[in-house]
Amino acid sequence: MAEKSSRGLADVVAATTSISDIDGESGRLFYRGYDIHDIAGRISFEECVHLLQRGDLPTQQGLDDLEDELTAARQIGATTEALLPHVVRAATPMEALRTLVSSLSVDDPDAGDSSVEADRRKATRLVAQMPILVARYEAARTGRAPVESDPDLGIAGNFLWQITGRYPSDRAQDLFDTCLVLHADHTMNASTFTARVIAATLSDMHSAITGAMGALRGPLHGGANEAVMNTLTSIEGDVDAVDGFVREELSAGRKLMGFGHRVYKTEDPRATHLRKMSEELGELSGNSRYYEFSRRMEQTVFDTKGLYPNVDFYAASVYHALGIPTDLFTPVFAISRMSGWTAHVIEQHEDNRLIRPGSEYTGPTGRRWADIAER
Amino acid sequence: MAEKSSRGLADVVAATTSISDIDGESGRLFYRGYDIHDIAGRISFEECVHLLQRGDLPTQQGLDDLEDELTAARQIGATTEALLPHVVRAATPMEALRTLVSSLSVDDPDAGDSSVEADRRKATRLVAQMPILVARYEAARTGRAPVESDPDLGIAGNFLWQITGRYPSDRAQDLFDTCLVLHADHTMNASTFTARVIAATLSDMHSAITGAMGALRGPLHGGANEAVMNTLTSIEGDVDAVDGFVREELSAGRKLMGFGHRVYKTEDPRATHLRKMSEELGELSGNSRYYEFSRRMEQTVFDTKGLYPNVDFYAASVYHALGIPTDLFTPVFAISRMSGWTAHVIEQHEDNRLIRPGSEYTGPTGRRWADIAER
Repeated sequence: MAEKSSRGLADVVAATTSISDIDGESGRLFYRGYDIHDIAGRISFEECVHLLQRGDLPTQQGLDDLEDELTAARQIGATTEALLPHVVRAATPMEALRTLVSSLSVDDPDAGDSSVEADRRKATRLVAQMPILVARYEAARTGRAPVESDPDLGIAGNFLWQITGRYPSDRAQDLFDTCLVLHADHTMNASTFTARVIAATLSDMHSAITGAMGALRGPLHGGANEAVMNTLTSIEGDVDAVDGFVREELSAGRKLMGFGHRVYKTEDPRATHLRKMSEELGELSGNSRYYEFSRRMEQTVFDTKGLYPNVDFYAASVYHALGIPTDLFTPVFAISRMSGWTAHVIEQHEDNRLIRPGSEYTGPTGRRWADIAER
Repeated sequence: MAEKSSRGLADVVAATTSISDIDGESGRLFYRGYDIHDIAGRISFEECVHLLQRGDLPTQQGLDDLEDELTAARQIGATTEALLPHVVRAATPMEALRTLVSSLSVDDPDAGDSSVEADRRKATRLVAQMPILVARYEAARTGRAPVESDPDLGIAGNFLWQITGRYPSDRAQDLFDTCLVLHADHTMNASTFTARVIAATLSDMHSAITGAMGALRGPLHGGANEAVMNTLTSIEGDVDAVDGFVREELSAGRKLMGFGHRVYKTEDPRATHLRKMSEELGELSGNSRYYEFSRRMEQTVFDTKGLYPNVDFYAASVYHALGIPTDLFTPVFAISRMSGWTAHVIEQHEDNRLIRPGSEYTGPTGRRWADIAER
């Protein structure tokens, strides 16, 4: 039946999309036709949500309306509240958050409706709820009282406020806002593709997003930013220790996370921005240790293996400098990517076809049943 | 970058597998090299689990050992127990069960371990836990005391016992056992493919299975068996009313669920068995209404559209005759398919490559940022 074979689907076009585009050869990324270099640092995450979910950058009125919607939706339902104290026993945040995100459907008034209008309402709500959920989870697992959401802060600023308990500087808010824009969408990455495969059975938005959470968790996907930070903190000594560490890891055959990408054959354009942000945050805080370690590691890995850093590499030192706990780095990725995931579910439902590939059978053939006494 | 384009991936080989194989032209299905016609009715679901997860039909000793493991694992952890009373508020069983399955990881001793050995232990546990979870959910939502699991009954018999509260006849146990065998695996169906995409990020077993639950729910996939039953019960009058009903639905452009399949170009071999089972259960119960309705609908749809019934079509009247509530039909599918899903996650982790397809961009290009005041 199936004619084209591609393990990992690396050279297969699985879907058409008008949400984002990547030129892997020249290292360019576009959201709805805007080059990421043209919009990163110039638009807020809320404007980016509007762009991805609704197709265009908003007018001032459109942005005001969306911000009002998002601020009003900064709450989780009674069911998810009730689950929180139980799932904090999970070993990792992404494990707990997968269950919590799944439970959001129970109190969602549109849960049973997969019309475009209902999908759009759920998409907006999920973008608003995800950072609140991470903050509530963080408070619950640390036993602290939840920090109240501040309606004067946008998604980026409010998240830093709720997670750190310190009012973030304007510059920290802007930089984190740009982080969220940079991670918002990336064509058919594994979690987005998961969401589309689920949505293509005409299953619902929350099922698709819960699946995406599970995929993002993997160390070959969103889990990589945590792995990078753990690598950086594991290196003892000063920056000159980095070279020896890298060579030792590589000669032991261990993979260094945060380098290389399935699609980019040159520098990941998101890394260009995150590198600068890591440098600036080091200077602002007076502690450039992890920026300098990262810079050196980047050079050594490129000299040794010819690999470029990807989005996860400099995100690690940036999030660390912003005061985010390391094991919340992947949840932060989810806060941003929720905007892209939900846009892709809407797009899939708008013009659906079941995604059901073939496979090549490589096992034994022609076996015949025998009675259990004769096996 | 991407060269081969296939919306829905209908003609793309996405993976190699030694678990199952389909010959769509001749309507044949194989589990690990055994023709489904050779094993359906001859092996128990437990033997099928052994075949799919471990590669071979078990010896008597192997089966005894697996049955002991499965019986011992008929329990859900304290976290999932605590969530049950809250998620029963979900509008549908699959929505509640998606959250509950996700929560099983919290108390799983192997949750953080994706080695082959740990994956195998989790795979066995999940097969044992899934029917218990459905039964506990059913008890919780109806406010009845849970029916205690009976260690003398296999998975099929114990599920009927716990769901209906009546001790099932030997024949009912055997027939339901065969239903579970028939639904156990089916190559790269949408839920199994979802599980593999998630597992291919090196994410964990529970993340993959939770995603699969979300995909199975869709009406183009596992949700179809419920839709078939709702269609059958909606027809008023006697069997002669079926023709008019079918023609009215089709002329109104509505899709009749349970017919046609992406892969089979002839009769789905599973439907052959389920048709006979539906007939036998009608005779045994003295009520053949839904069997006769199904038979007539099959003929009318074939005469009108040339479509064959798929696995979901006769499963509906079979499950109904076995006393299973209609909205638990898709959860029953999940009980069976858990064996295939988990086998595929093990296989994916054993020889992994990230599944990350390309996409074709169809949106606007060359857009340039403008200040919000000028949009």
